[in-house]
Amino acid sequence: MKELETHLCFGGTLTVYEHESAVLGCTMKFSVFLPPQARDGDVTLLTYLSGLTCTYDNFTTKAGAYGFAAAHGIAILAPDTSPRGDDVPDDEAYDFGKGAGFYINATRGVWAQHFKMEDYIVKELNALVCKEFSVLDGKQGITGHSMGGHGALTLGLKYPETFTSISAFAPIVAPSQVPWGEKAFTGYLGDDKEEWLKHDATALMQVAGKRTDAPEILIDQGGGDDFLDEQLKPHLFADACSSAGQKLTLRIHNGYDHSYYFIQSYIEDHIIHHTNILTEKS
Amino acid sequence: MKELETHLCFGGTLTVYEHESAVLGCTMKFSVFLPPQARDGDVTLLTYLSGLTCTYDNFTTKAGAYGFAAAHGIAILAPDTSPRGDDVPDDEAYDFGKGAGFYINATRGVWAQHFKMEDYIVKELNALVCKEFSVLDGKQGITGHSMGGHGALTLGLKYPETFTSISAFAPIVAPSQVPWGEKAFTGYLGDDKEEWLKHDATALMQVAGKRTDAPEILIDQGGGDDFLDEQLKPHLFADACSSAGQKLTLRIHNGYDHSYYFIQSYIEDHIIHHTNILTEKS
Repeated sequence: MKELETHLCFGGTLTVYEHESAVLGCTMKFSVFLPPQARDGDVTLLTYLSGLTCTYDNFTTKAGAYGFAAAHGIAILAPDTSPRGDDVPDDEAYDFGKGAGFYINATRGVWAQHFKMEDYIVKELNALVCKEFSVLDGKQGITGHSMGGHGALTLGLKYPETFTSISAFAPIVAPSQVPWGEKAFTGYLGDDKEEWLKHDATALMQVAGKRTDAPEILIDQGGGDDFLDEQLKPHLFADACSSAGQKLTLRIHNGYDHSYYFIQSYIEDHIIHHTNILTEKS
Repeated sequence: MKELETHLCFGGTLTVYEHESAVLGCTMKFSVFLPPQARDGDVTLLTYLSGLTCTYDNFTTKAGAYGFAAAHGIAILAPDTSPRGDDVPDDEAYDFGKGAGFYINATRGVWAQHFKMEDYIVKELNALVCKEFSVLDGKQGITGHSMGGHGALTLGLKYPETFTSISAFAPIVAPSQVPWGEKAFTGYLGDDKEEWLKHDATALMQVAGKRTDAPEILIDQGGGDDFLDEQLKPHLFADACSSAGQKLTLRIHNGYDHSYYFIQSYIEDHIIHHTNILTEKS
């Protein structure tokens, strides 16, 4: 693990690292914010997964999250969205290949070798971060935006032993039913739609049954988001949560779009959401 | 004036505009954040001037300022740092020509035609913004970073009828005495150092005499800033303020660098500084 840049920020430290990922077979970058409280002991950890075309850098520079993270004493990990480098295959489209890993393990074609983002995020990177930094590996939350919101919901639901608290900004909640997801899942997983449902938050919730003990999930969605009706469809997940007994707060914010101006406007609420769940007396 | 993009942000609106500048003889971009309070009447205005290599975009996307601006009801204008476009001359260096206008009116060589950033900021753009938006032209503050901190201090001191409140992040306080300023002033103004002193915050303060009625100036400086000792030298301005009777708060923050991670850590204090002065009962 190599440090590329580090900055004091709100009394904590924001650092960008590079490391060799065995799972992805390439060099990856990520950022970690450690709040000032991490100097005195382990703190809770929030993983933020970015959307299509993004790297670790979008959230790191644009989300305005670190002041709130410092105030609440939570660390934030921002990984990249796909494997990287000249040896990794790519596609011309913005919504497939590099920058569009969809947080799943690809099984098809040229993608199967490197595009193992589910294992990378949940296993390799998580273990590395929990080992190298002052974070509590039993007190973690996960959030994300758009494709990363899909990642946060699905990985959060599939790995409750790792991620206790879940939230998302403008998530793709039902990738099996929308163009972005259909294209990615066909390319990475093939045509078997049963396989797709293992990576679809709405489908996961539909088969989960009663989950009344699970912590509340928070979703914020801009009402003026250009992708809302065709790609995001949060009501599908809300309906599934309702049927399953999963507590969900879904907020539609009139006029807000899909940008980081939306995310920065509500990131404090997400940090409070995760902090409240992760620090709850049990 | 053409709107390029607009986003809801913390209940206000962040909009990027393009306009034809008669003063600069080129097309320019800038951003304006209007807090939610601007819907109910005119609000105070803060102009933020960026540093070398920046455009309006750096502050706009990275400073994390708009949540605080919304809370305190102040609008923020972020202009570009130089004239732009294919017809504008440039220099290969990062610290001269495009991206390095230094907020002065050039008088020499190929620069004299377009590089009139002082007139652009103080006259043309200020008049446009005061005319087009719900802002109080008698209640304005100015701030900036590095080269833009030099701009904020000098334009604030030279135009008190326009800018009531002044602050800066890591400003070049004495351009006549440091390499960045010597290079820019030689190129834009020529070799006459008397001319330079009209655009040097420390020199302006040295000749200002007693200014005990002027509002306090706030300067934040990172103690780990790589440019501190060679280019910034805030103690020179602090000494001049002390001699002139100008109230100054100069804070050196151990370990903080020259980046927007530093700016975002202290931008709230600057917004409060300007708001307190601009909304003071008189």
